[in-house]
Amino acid sequence: QNIVGGRPETCLCQKTRDSLRVNRRYIENIEIFPPSNFCMKLEIIVNLKNGNKYCLNPEAQKIRQMIKNLQSKYMP
Amino acid sequence: QNIVGGRPETCLCQKTRDSLRVNRRYIENIEIFPPSNFCMKLEIIVNLKNGNKYCLNPEAQKIRQMIKNLQSKYMP
Repeated sequence: QNIVGGRPETCLCQKTRDSLRVNRRYIENIEIFPPSNFCMKLEIIVNLKNGNKYCLNPEAQKIRQMIKNLQSKYMP
Repeated sequence: QNIVGGRPETCLCQKTRDSLRVNRRYIENIEIFPPSNFCMKLEIIVNLKNGNKYCLNPEAQKIRQMIKNLQSKYMP
């Protein structure tokens, strides 16, 4: 678990994953944190319904695709 | 303010905005909630540092662009 927890005055993520195989059903939400005074990097965190959290690599193609899929598949 | 608050057993958003003019500096994070048993719709909520929250229309072009910009501009 590499989330420092809450919004400390540091980056939230030490390590990030370039992909995450999880069914959408298990995703509580995805949080996108723009760079801030606390952290120069853009950070993306997925929160699962079982309480697990994972840092995702914003630059990884699979992660970008995942976020895009999340938004597109549900268009009417 | 149209957020029901927390994760009630309903949709989080009644109304959504098709655009939001706010400088990235003021954004705490953006949350993407996939459809769930509680809510059939994909919901996107932006949390501002001043505590305000706004529901964004996932289908609106400007919102999609906003999320894309958020992820792309910070690529090294």
